[in-house]
Amino acid sequence: MILLGLDPGLGTTGWGVIAADGNRLSHIANGQIRTEPGMQLPRRLTLLFDALTDVIRTERPDGAAVEEVLGNSNAQSTLKLGQARGVVLLAAATAGVAIGEYHPSIVKKAVVGTGGADKKQVQAMVMRLLPGVKLSGPDAADALAVAITHAHHLASQRALARRVAGAGA
Amino acid sequence: MILLGLDPGLGTTGWGVIAADGNRLSHIANGQIRTEPGMQLPRRLTLLFDALTDVIRTERPDGAAVEEVLGNSNAQSTLKLGQARGVVLLAAATAGVAIGEYHPSIVKKAVVGTGGADKKQVQAMVMRLLPGVKLSGPDAADALAVAITHAHHLASQRALARRVAGAGA
Repeated sequence: MILLGLDPGLGTTGWGVIAADGNRLSHIANGQIRTEPGMQLPRRLTLLFDALTDVIRTERPDGAAVEEVLGNSNAQSTLKLGQARGVVLLAAATAGVAIGEYHPSIVKKAVVGTGGADKKQVQAMVMRLLPGVKLSGPDAADALAVAITHAHHLASQRALARRVAGAGA
Repeated sequence: MILLGLDPGLGTTGWGVIAADGNRLSHIANGQIRTEPGMQLPRRLTLLFDALTDVIRTERPDGAAVEEVLGNSNAQSTLKLGQARGVVLLAAATAGVAIGEYHPSIVKKAVVGTGGADKKQVQAMVMRLLPGVKLSGPDAADALAVAITHAHHLASQRALARRVAGAGA
């Protein structure tokens, strides 16, 4: 399975694509989509949508995932993030790619093993889990972490389904 | 000029279309796009984008406008609004329609005459300024108020341009 992880942001949206074969993971591609703060907002959103649509067309993922957003006390930054996130979710949906959402602590637990891990620990584990990966930046690393989480989740769902089927046989 | 006003929201997005001929305004159409809370978020955003794209294709506005968002202390509701707003701005930009943004107090002042007007006063003035209008609901009324604000702004820009041209002659 080809899985796309996304870390939406108006200024920088990270993306990362991995191949998952059971529990074996390998890196395919990662990148960061940037839009300039000086540009008008509708233009920035259009650039983000078009660039992400290109990534999806090129990489043809079987599924995608994104972190849940908790939001913070700065309403303007939450609004900006929301606008970018809406466009990111729309791009995936328009391309027919189902998109899962994971709480940030689930992502940390899946990648590092503890829900309280910091960004550096996540980045280090992403590099260890995907040998040879060259990270385009911290947002791309976060996106790959979400893709890895999605792969783990799908693998454990399949394992559960096999066990249920086995119990019924 | 045909102008489209928008009041974005994930549950309900209001829209209103008016014709502006100098200072004379007339109502063309208004409506509300609803998405069900029980649906998955990417699906809701897709429905919103598609419905608004249909409105723009049908009404062929020369310009659009939306209120600036101040955001509030509830991060989750600001995030929801942001996601819907990003998709609304994208729909206008994708259709090639420029979209202006107005501070809520500017909208109230343009429609009622005072920046501190309440929702009911805005709605009553929208009905007075656009005789015969049948409002689809409060969000459609807010959308028409933004369209009226945009019309006033464009008319005063043109008046200023004429005065500058006159002074230069």
